[in-house]
Amino acid sequence: MSRCSDLPNALDLSHHLSKVAQARQVSPLKGLQKYLGRKDLIVLAGGLPHPDLFPFEEISANVYSPDIFPLRSSKKSSFPSWIVNLFSRKGSNGWAKLKIRKYPKDPGELNLAQLLQYGLSSGLPDLQKLLEEFVERVYRPAYGNWKILIHTGNTDGWVRAAMTLCDPGDAFLTSEWTYPSAVAAASPLGLRAVPVPMDGEGMRSDALFTLLATWDKGVRGSPRPRVMYTVPTGQNPTGATMDVHRKNEIYDICVRFDVIIVEDDPYYFLQEGPYTPPQNRVARTELSNEAFLASLVPSYLSIDYQGRVVRLDSFSKTIAPGCRLGWFTCNALFAERFERQGETSTQAPSGLSQGLVTALLLNWKFEGYVRWLRGLGTQYRERRDLCIDLFAEFFKLKPRSPGINGTPYDGYLKPRSLHSFDYWTEKFVDVPNESPVISFVPPTSGMFLWLQINFKSHPSFSRLGQRALETRICTEFADAGVLVGPGFIFSPRLTDNIDDGGPGHIRLSFSNANPDVLKKAISIMAVVLERLFSSGDQS
Amino acid sequence: MSRCSDLPNALDLSHHLSKVAQARQVSPLKGLQKYLGRKDLIVLAGGLPHPDLFPFEEISANVYSPDIFPLRSSKKSSFPSWIVNLFSRKGSNGWAKLKIRKYPKDPGELNLAQLLQYGLSSGLPDLQKLLEEFVERVYRPAYGNWKILIHTGNTDGWVRAAMTLCDPGDAFLTSEWTYPSAVAAASPLGLRAVPVPMDGEGMRSDALFTLLATWDKGVRGSPRPRVMYTVPTGQNPTGATMDVHRKNEIYDICVRFDVIIVEDDPYYFLQEGPYTPPQNRVARTELSNEAFLASLVPSYLSIDYQGRVVRLDSFSKTIAPGCRLGWFTCNALFAERFERQGETSTQAPSGLSQGLVTALLLNWKFEGYVRWLRGLGTQYRERRDLCIDLFAEFFKLKPRSPGINGTPYDGYLKPRSLHSFDYWTEKFVDVPNESPVISFVPPTSGMFLWLQINFKSHPSFSRLGQRALETRICTEFADAGVLVGPGFIFSPRLTDNIDDGGPGHIRLSFSNANPDVLKKAISIMAVVLERLFSSGDQS
Repeated sequence: MSRCSDLPNALDLSHHLSKVAQARQVSPLKGLQKYLGRKDLIVLAGGLPHPDLFPFEEISANVYSPDIFPLRSSKKSSFPSWIVNLFSRKGSNGWAKLKIRKYPKDPGELNLAQLLQYGLSSGLPDLQKLLEEFVERVYRPAYGNWKILIHTGNTDGWVRAAMTLCDPGDAFLTSEWTYPSAVAAASPLGLRAVPVPMDGEGMRSDALFTLLATWDKGVRGSPRPRVMYTVPTGQNPTGATMDVHRKNEIYDICVRFDVIIVEDDPYYFLQEGPYTPPQNRVARTELSNEAFLASLVPSYLSIDYQGRVVRLDSFSKTIAPGCRLGWFTCNALFAERFERQGETSTQAPSGLSQGLVTALLLNWKFEGYVRWLRGLGTQYRERRDLCIDLFAEFFKLKPRSPGINGTPYDGYLKPRSLHSFDYWTEKFVDVPNESPVISFVPPTSGMFLWLQINFKSHPSFSRLGQRALETRICTEFADAGVLVGPGFIFSPRLTDNIDDGGPGHIRLSFSNANPDVLKKAISIMAVVLERLFSSGDQS
Repeated sequence: MSRCSDLPNALDLSHHLSKVAQARQVSPLKGLQKYLGRKDLIVLAGGLPHPDLFPFEEISANVYSPDIFPLRSSKKSSFPSWIVNLFSRKGSNGWAKLKIRKYPKDPGELNLAQLLQYGLSSGLPDLQKLLEEFVERVYRPAYGNWKILIHTGNTDGWVRAAMTLCDPGDAFLTSEWTYPSAVAAASPLGLRAVPVPMDGEGMRSDALFTLLATWDKGVRGSPRPRVMYTVPTGQNPTGATMDVHRKNEIYDICVRFDVIIVEDDPYYFLQEGPYTPPQNRVARTELSNEAFLASLVPSYLSIDYQGRVVRLDSFSKTIAPGCRLGWFTCNALFAERFERQGETSTQAPSGLSQGLVTALLLNWKFEGYVRWLRGLGTQYRERRDLCIDLFAEFFKLKPRSPGINGTPYDGYLKPRSLHSFDYWTEKFVDVPNESPVISFVPPTSGMFLWLQINFKSHPSFSRLGQRALETRICTEFADAGVLVGPGFIFSPRLTDNIDDGGPGHIRLSFSNANPDVLKKAISIMAVVLERLFSSGDQS
């Protein structure tokens, strides 16, 4: 697919380059690089081992067919359909065998000798080409001369962006709850996270505007932030997903205040849609590939007419994290600096990972990969549904009136005799005058449930405070056999050691556990919470 | 193999940690990590995809037998024995098929589900265990509590070491010729390379002592260097190999001045031994694995009783660079900081790479891998021998009296009619009063020939200077079809843009080209040098 030629090119954003990024040298061999295209050139310049001496002669992989996971959710999700499906297709032509040989006869084939050799820091050209087509068709960037650069995962991508765009002492914008590794990576480099208040959609545009418009360098101790770190879809940890209207508002503010947006979007294709209680759940209409792509919240890339978005895509959630593969989409200037940085650190992503993922995508083709993503989305929707359904089994769950991003639910303690008895609080009459123990908004994307624990009704709240109670509750959960993340670790102010005084939270992932295990986990949490919130607990 | 228990532990070297390294946080989840060993624990803390949703069900690889390459060099190396050997064994039981399944029945087997999942930043435990045994048996570290940490290649290793040990404004020690990416990685971080004079063995201990003993912070503009970057075996670019006596001297100086040694040693197992002209070459005695290991120059690790060596090992030269795998061996304090840094950048090396390399090493076992390394050594020795033999074909080559690290050779222009005619200058009588055009010491390890081009006898030397002539000669070579590296790019002072006024150099790699291609390359270089050094050339 050729790029739309009437789009503008990126602005010159070179004033955003950090001192470190500016100091990176282009290889002094660059003058000789023009020769590298010559077919008969004998290259004795690099320290390259001879490929005959690589011990791998062929690698192969058995892979699933892209349509292995059904598109239709089962109505009741406690026994997901994928289990049946997965095994019934084994050995059928629903599977493919991929082979990569060392010296293939067809020069168009992937070549294991090339994959095992030193590779380009920008990534395997065959994979770059596939990703360029993918980005063009799926995200439809709003400027013309964007670039693709393969990296080793979005955390690597973020660190490279932070080092390329920020100098020590700079502040960067993030949400008031955020991915801890993003802060842990930037903080030792002298970069301070400035939290922007959130609502159910994620970062608030009005709060962002106020923050930037009233920024006082003297008071704040650093210049107005020029970089934003954001996870717009299935946000980590809150699960919030930002609609295009909000994205447009935020983008316009970033244009006005000249802010670069680093869009870390690993959960983009896990857009599960709104949660519906089982009694109202209906089978979803199956979308075509095209309608599926059109149904996704647009990326910041599709809004970005200036080239101020650095988008980070990852294969970790759509293929497998162990591949350590993802990619930047950004303006050519930043891409070139990221490439220089790659050359002098990891050099290039693993050739074996790149080769196997490329072989997979070449086998599946664009349409197959989109079909795979739709199947994944259904799987994670079933897991999300099951998780919420299970909370209704072990808590009295009561919906509030729908808010900006779905319906919040309050969960009340439920006598153990009623566990597994009935699903929905509509049927309970004994709720109103109690305080709910938990509250949450079912996420519409991603892997996380951000569970508010209403510590204010806990007898020891005023004495211990929120952070200590979060630690205590997570320790009690762990003692009882369930490990979850305490909310305070997702605060960009974590290292300030400040108790934010708000209601407590835990982050719970519904992506990895099997149905029976998830059920056990939530039942354990219900028992522990009952004990902790019963009036006798004053420890 | 259990570690020697009566060795001392590492010193506390925490005063070497950079501000960035000190600022890295331990995960706030650390308090909960003790629970992770519990078998029945339900982990909902991480954002882990479900392994059923990974599209790879099995990966496999056809690999060579570890003894595929012979140990005995052919006497005349222009047609290496490996070509015959490689093809004659194809399809025989000299090959193995490795398989890694997603959910193997035997829990001791490698598990593809684990390899495809998020992994430890310290590396795959199975691989760590193999490497620990390897380091213990091969390098025999001189202190007790060293650690192994897997990284994505030695350039990554060096950057992590530099960021962990140096603050902006610091200087680090290196050789007067050095690996350009080591400087290119450190320089943008504000770290300045201080070159130490070399001789045929590499860095000079007397020069190092003088440099450190007379260091004047005021004059030099930075505190006395606390970190040394060194490639002790088959040094890049000079090919020099440092013996244990010199290593001991340098280590003692580093103890005295409290310097950390970063030992970047990718060519360690390519110790090819001294070069012997073909007419005197005799078949080598085949060594046992044990005798082979004992014949290798000891690593700094075997000298390091204080834990001040950070050794970087790489699979790039011994298995394949595309794996992007290597490892640190160092004290526990540094290893822990490297691990924190890994968690917030690449997170972990590719699980696919780690899995395939681990499967290979498990198949070969320790003895097999050592046998493989011996075969590789023979291959590179044949390539080194061939390369020098070819210079004798296209130049009049005359040995000087042997120096500290072998015999230097001078090469004189040879009439084209005599190309390919005869090998050795002993037979020429018309040499003495000319100036040699090239000079070199045949390397005893590694992949590189460091060719001195005697520009002082070039008609334009006084006018153009060394750097411009190097560029010009490399451009002329490239125009004629051969790409080599101009010497000045290996100077740590590269960015100072200072012409060092010495004789010119080029770095030539004999590792990658096939015999006929290498022959063509050297014949082209002879023709180009003849033209450039003929008296008429004044351009």
